[in-house]
Amino acid sequence: MNANAATHSLQLVREMDVPADKLYKAWTTPERMGEWFCPKPWKVTEARMDIRPGGSSYILMEGPEGEKIPNYGIYLEVVPNRKLVFTDAYTSAWVPSEKPFMTAVVEFEDLGNGRTKYTATALHWTEEDRKAHEEMGFHEGWGIVAGQLEEIAKTF
Amino acid sequence: MNANAATHSLQLVREMDVPADKLYKAWTTPERMGEWFCPKPWKVTEARMDIRPGGSSYILMEGPEGEKIPNYGIYLEVVPNRKLVFTDAYTSAWVPSEKPFMTAVVEFEDLGNGRTKYTATALHWTEEDRKAHEEMGFHEGWGIVAGQLEEIAKTF
Repeated sequence: MNANAATHSLQLVREMDVPADKLYKAWTTPERMGEWFCPKPWKVTEARMDIRPGGSSYILMEGPEGEKIPNYGIYLEVVPNRKLVFTDAYTSAWVPSEKPFMTAVVEFEDLGNGRTKYTATALHWTEEDRKAHEEMGFHEGWGIVAGQLEEIAKTF
Repeated sequence: MNANAATHSLQLVREMDVPADKLYKAWTTPERMGEWFCPKPWKVTEARMDIRPGGSSYILMEGPEGEKIPNYGIYLEVVPNRKLVFTDAYTSAWVPSEKPFMTAVVEFEDLGNGRTKYTATALHWTEEDRKAHEEMGFHEGWGIVAGQLEEIAKTF
């Protein structure tokens, strides 16, 4: 992807048994996000998504002990049924966040026969942040979430 | 603009005797950028602008001693004749830059009678960067540039 891809990015690729439009629909329906967006026992208890370039995203995650993690971000690129790009570098258009941590690129590639190649890439501004994200359990976490997404998307 | 506007942003506002569409045209014509984008004796010797959300910008500034400062960035929001938003946080869509320094919001507000309110805002991720930008001469520099832009825009 770029010169610093190896040191600055993390990626999950998975082939799914669901058409791209259903995966995209599941991704962009805030009311259903609670069913798949977190690895259990964490859950999403509030989600607001203004899905357009410059639109805001707010996702509240709650842990088993009542911990709350609010996530603010904005969408940078929206290609229906194909691609979503968002970042936490802004809390709304174009207000800088306290700490730009990553940009996420989520791609849905139609493989035919109702199958989709799902690629989720996290791009970080620093090698340290990439490392921290990996140690926070990126591969396991995003993997669990991808599995949950696949199941929920089938119900759309 | 936001809670941290006072500590994180710098702004230049000027009323200009040129219609908004001419100012926008001057801003978005790379071949003419060398005539106004730098305070002299600095000059722009190369400019490439792919003016659309996610499009890349590359501007090479050269100083009187042959110093070269390449500027890479991307456009985040483009509203013809009204608004341009760009940042150095990405070198292309969506590759993180080495150091996200600022987001620039340039607005052209039609005041009627061929006059325009020109507002250029630099939003920084940290208070330190805002301070550094101010000490680098933001107000004088962007002021000179705004004056040069106004003159060049009249020739469009």
